[in-house]
Amino acid sequence: MNFVCDRVAVTDAVGIVQKAVASRSTLPVLEGILIKASEGRVVLTGNDLEIGIECVIAADVSAPGKVVVNSNLFGTAVRKMTGDTITVKMLPNNAVSIKCGNSEIKLNGINAEEFPEIPKFETEFDIVLSQREFKSLIRHTIFAVGTNEAKLILTGCLLEASGNNVNMVAVDGFRLALKKVVTEESSVSGYFGDVSLVIPAKTLRELNNIIVDRDDKIIIKCSQKNVRFEFDNVVFTSRLLEGDFIEYKKIIPTEFKTKITADLKSLIEAVDRASIIITNEINKSPLIMKISGGEIRILCETGAGAVDEVVPVEMTGADIEIGFNNKYLLEALKAAEGDRVNLDFIGPINPCLITPYEGDDFKFIVLPVRLRTDVSMDV
Amino acid sequence: MNFVCDRVAVTDAVGIVQKAVASRSTLPVLEGILIKASEGRVVLTGNDLEIGIECVIAADVSAPGKVVVNSNLFGTAVRKMTGDTITVKMLPNNAVSIKCGNSEIKLNGINAEEFPEIPKFETEFDIVLSQREFKSLIRHTIFAVGTNEAKLILTGCLLEASGNNVNMVAVDGFRLALKKVVTEESSVSGYFGDVSLVIPAKTLRELNNIIVDRDDKIIIKCSQKNVRFEFDNVVFTSRLLEGDFIEYKKIIPTEFKTKITADLKSLIEAVDRASIIITNEINKSPLIMKISGGEIRILCETGAGAVDEVVPVEMTGADIEIGFNNKYLLEALKAAEGDRVNLDFIGPINPCLITPYEGDDFKFIVLPVRLRTDVSMDV
Repeated sequence: MNFVCDRVAVTDAVGIVQKAVASRSTLPVLEGILIKASEGRVVLTGNDLEIGIECVIAADVSAPGKVVVNSNLFGTAVRKMTGDTITVKMLPNNAVSIKCGNSEIKLNGINAEEFPEIPKFETEFDIVLSQREFKSLIRHTIFAVGTNEAKLILTGCLLEASGNNVNMVAVDGFRLALKKVVTEESSVSGYFGDVSLVIPAKTLRELNNIIVDRDDKIIIKCSQKNVRFEFDNVVFTSRLLEGDFIEYKKIIPTEFKTKITADLKSLIEAVDRASIIITNEINKSPLIMKISGGEIRILCETGAGAVDEVVPVEMTGADIEIGFNNKYLLEALKAAEGDRVNLDFIGPINPCLITPYEGDDFKFIVLPVRLRTDVSMDV
Repeated sequence: MNFVCDRVAVTDAVGIVQKAVASRSTLPVLEGILIKASEGRVVLTGNDLEIGIECVIAADVSAPGKVVVNSNLFGTAVRKMTGDTITVKMLPNNAVSIKCGNSEIKLNGINAEEFPEIPKFETEFDIVLSQREFKSLIRHTIFAVGTNEAKLILTGCLLEASGNNVNMVAVDGFRLALKKVVTEESSVSGYFGDVSLVIPAKTLRELNNIIVDRDDKIIIKCSQKNVRFEFDNVVFTSRLLEGDFIEYKKIIPTEFKTKITADLKSLIEAVDRASIIITNEINKSPLIMKISGGEIRILCETGAGAVDEVVPVEMTGADIEIGFNNKYLLEALKAAEGDRVNLDFIGPINPCLITPYEGDDFKFIVLPVRLRTDVSMDV
């Protein structure tokens, strides 16, 4: 193996594939990236057995070949060199020489045959949307994803596509987040009808760190068990979560007794301040909302002190007093967009629905926590 | 206690005094700051028993008084409020109400009498220099300070003042850093002759985070055991380290066999790259410098690989091959200033002296590590 390539291009490529490299593993090969040089191009691959990322860069290849090198060392080496191009050459015993200007760094490598292969699969259908749209789907739902491994299917986000409509949904048992985007062209190809898949949260988080807010497309190629995201010079492969996602549409309430509209920034700031004194994560005090007379009073009392916040709102319907886990409410509000936001309530033990003031491109549901007075009524 | 003050001013003041607050302590009062309101002003105080910081802000005080509140909660509360001014009021049982716009945050406090007093002392002499000069003294020496508690005196930096000359020195047994500044006016007052004191590294690090690169003065008021730094609206008190500092002037070599001048940035980058493969901190491989024929070759070999760097230099004197701990060499070079730097050598087991190409405002000494060939000669 012997090739010359642009130093910045290879540095960026390592930065991308490194997201699929285990930072510490008992298997050294999993801390490595596969470098594979062939006619005119070099493919870098990271694979931690959950996700696999391949990134292609142009290179002047004088001898094809492949080898595995430690991802962190190789990435640091090319980043800290200072010339425009680097020369990478295979040495005996899987060692690799990287030359740039007056520097030569040799790294001990591993035989490429030991590197785990990324699963190949036939795709059944494709979903196509812009990177910007896909990033927006992730950002508005990922906070609500489940962390309970006993309900594995909820540790991923449901992606649904039908014609020009693409939805992403996350549910963790205490809250739900639904985000919709409408694509310019039909989003699904290769299949007549609606499609859905459940993508692990880790996959979405890493993708969100790689893709950018641009109109460039991301093509999502799906089989029953695996998915491949193709964008720019990257192919990102992940397994899917198998099983039936929760029937989320049944959870979303449609009839309400109290409806309010509030300035989003003021509401976030008030909930954020009320959270200051919630320092005990184990036996957490609820944040109490008293909605009445055209305002929300947000109250909280803990061992550290007490907070009393007032946010003016437009309201219709009955007064209500309802308690929330501050974190769930705050994360939903922070994922909301627009200057103003709607909050709709049924009663103190029913979920609250958060929607945009205009349009319907997101729906967040947060379950309340029962306040002491409710509990005593149950006894 | 009842006062109104500027919200940003109090937020900044908490940010400063918080550096003297224990983040976790078994004594809640040490996680607190003392708020003391008197005619026209409020003094905030943090005191972790090693350092004490007082910060004064202007306030409209309608009732004087004092109380201790949790530093982190109070700081977060005033930072997250959104109005221009806040009203702080004492409530029964040492609770404190902070009001701003539509928000009220009450924090449970502690009786001010429980707060440890910052030691008061008569000063014997003052040292005066600009904050910029003092920051420069710290930045150029702090990296070489000792961490071995068995040699307590070396865990601080020596500050020497004589007329217009102020020096700071740090020595950790493997390296030495000396930085000089020349003040516009005589730096010492209250004493005829030279003065010196040893300031704990922690004190200097915290000071370095507070003072800014400005010409405003810092007044250093010293007694035998304590020191007080006065600048802007801050009084920063610390104990001093007692005992005799090492006679550092004897360590600095003056006769050399090899003298080189190198581009500082190129040398730093080469040493930095050679350090990439030094991943084992326990049984550390040395970085080998071969100086010969108008260049330094920097070589290193470890289990991870090998590095070969070439930096052209101007040289006079004999060829030399010498080994270094990469960290010690790199930290000294990074603290150096100017486009070019001088490195002077005596032999492979003698210290190397790093000085500026022009002037003499810093001197760094780094001890070499014996290379295997030297060791075998000793056997």
